[in-house]
Amino acid sequence: MGGGHGLAASLSALRRLTEDLTAIVTVADDGGSSGRLRAEFGVLPPGDLRKALAALCGDDEWGQTWARVVQHRFASSGPLHGHAVGNLLIVALWELLRDQVTALEWVGRLLGVRGRVLPMAGVPLDIEASVRGVDPARPDEITLVRGQAQVATTRGTVLSIRLLPENPPAVPEAVAAVRDAEWVVLGPGSWFTSVIPHLLVPELARALLETSARRVVALNLAPQPGETEGFSPQKHLEVLRAHAPELRIDIVLADVGVVKDRAGLARAAADLGAELVLAPVAMDDGSPRHDPMRLAKAYDEIFAQCGFGQGRN
Amino acid sequence: MGGGHGLAASLSALRRLTEDLTAIVTVADDGGSSGRLRAEFGVLPPGDLRKALAALCGDDEWGQTWARVVQHRFASSGPLHGHAVGNLLIVALWELLRDQVTALEWVGRLLGVRGRVLPMAGVPLDIEASVRGVDPARPDEITLVRGQAQVATTRGTVLSIRLLPENPPAVPEAVAAVRDAEWVVLGPGSWFTSVIPHLLVPELARALLETSARRVVALNLAPQPGETEGFSPQKHLEVLRAHAPELRIDIVLADVGVVKDRAGLARAAADLGAELVLAPVAMDDGSPRHDPMRLAKAYDEIFAQCGFGQGRN
Repeated sequence: MGGGHGLAASLSALRRLTEDLTAIVTVADDGGSSGRLRAEFGVLPPGDLRKALAALCGDDEWGQTWARVVQHRFASSGPLHGHAVGNLLIVALWELLRDQVTALEWVGRLLGVRGRVLPMAGVPLDIEASVRGVDPARPDEITLVRGQAQVATTRGTVLSIRLLPENPPAVPEAVAAVRDAEWVVLGPGSWFTSVIPHLLVPELARALLETSARRVVALNLAPQPGETEGFSPQKHLEVLRAHAPELRIDIVLADVGVVKDRAGLARAAADLGAELVLAPVAMDDGSPRHDPMRLAKAYDEIFAQCGFGQGRN
Repeated sequence: MGGGHGLAASLSALRRLTEDLTAIVTVADDGGSSGRLRAEFGVLPPGDLRKALAALCGDDEWGQTWARVVQHRFASSGPLHGHAVGNLLIVALWELLRDQVTALEWVGRLLGVRGRVLPMAGVPLDIEASVRGVDPARPDEITLVRGQAQVATTRGTVLSIRLLPENPPAVPEAVAAVRDAEWVVLGPGSWFTSVIPHLLVPELARALLETSARRVVALNLAPQPGETEGFSPQKHLEVLRAHAPELRIDIVLADVGVVKDRAGLARAAADLGAELVLAPVAMDDGSPRHDPMRLAKAYDEIFAQCGFGQGRN
């Protein structure tokens, strides 16, 4: 569960371990190509769905080529500038087939994907955040900031988010996937705009509470300028807990190199019922991106320790 | 060889008879979605190529579904309005693969096409027509009208066309296909803007003169308002001859129901070296469109009479 590049990294790792894989993707993006398509056609923002599909594409020339095509972004001085081809393809299939899930399955077949990609909700959503100190002159004032793109880049400290419309309908196939899973992985990704939103879709949140699956939270490698500026890893967990107080987590995965206060993070994990696992999962180049190979190794060890593939307990 | 709906009808017929089929498509369109993409990206106009690919799509659910997708046209009040999805896909593949022919092969593989679709030239072209009587007040004045969309809808009588740039480079694969063919079919289609242009690409015209293939001209069912307004079937042949004086034709195929002056048309065909074949090839509904089943039957009988598939003579 997630969105954007974080989810794509997680899927690039998880696809190495299993084909029985479902990505459940946020649908609150309102920026860029997705935002423009949403405004022009009233559809779900397709961008994060496209990225997830491309991350799961087939290994052969067919899958690789079509993944490049759907990820291709037009560059011009005209009206198509910035549109990703796959976004246009997804919107066309939605219009033609009039079924969000079936349309994404067709794009999945085109790419030869391992697994499935589903939207977390059937209607486009907006994120509204309570933010403290947007105006540096009034650091204690709490302001409502609306829109994923605005929240992701806000000044001030994000305190909490809600979805508009509130309590949106989940996609039934996504709810079923959570209930049937052996493992659910939340994150990494933009915390308030890609990870937390899933917890605010009631049927999905309930499925996550009630599933017999084990639950992993994969933490980000660094705070994001804007939405999580200055947040420590444990602060990320506190935010998660604040948005889903009943949710219990089994494993919190963090990069061994970026955690400064291990004891503090272990305590925050324990508050969620979770064991902290530290592993090298970051890229070698110092950028705050996950290395899919290393992330795969970390997931593999976590799953192996806890009996992956041996049926649910 | 052709373009637009006429070529698509011919391909829908020919695909029933053979899989060894190459469509060679005009690239002078400057209207609609193709015209906008050409202006925005400097690429070949993709629309007629897309229509030809869709006409050759696979019979199965896969081919049929992707054909519907590439033929889907966005409808909105925004900047994507009117763009055909397949046009965007073709442009993306051209940008990504930087090879026009390979890119079209990939779209062909997506659609599971029988045969191949090639552009007639490697650069976007403009059509310039000499037109008599554009201004009804001066019926004898000859004016140059530029652009396929303008020529197709001009007032007055089109006398001749030329291509800009003149003597454009042919696509080598198209030249080879003409030289290797057993049969070449010209038309049906917009006479000046989809059929004649092939004769003005020097290497393609030379291949057409020199090939050992038999040559069929499939006539239109009615003159087109604008570019061939008031033209009789024999006038179409005279125009063809005027643009390619050395070209010999084997068979002229016309609908049995629309030809008024059989003797006159037979004489015009004979002037090209051709036998006139009259057959029922129009739709039953009275519209000036070819019925692919009937057209297939007519081609089949022509090919059978002359020994199709028995090697070249």
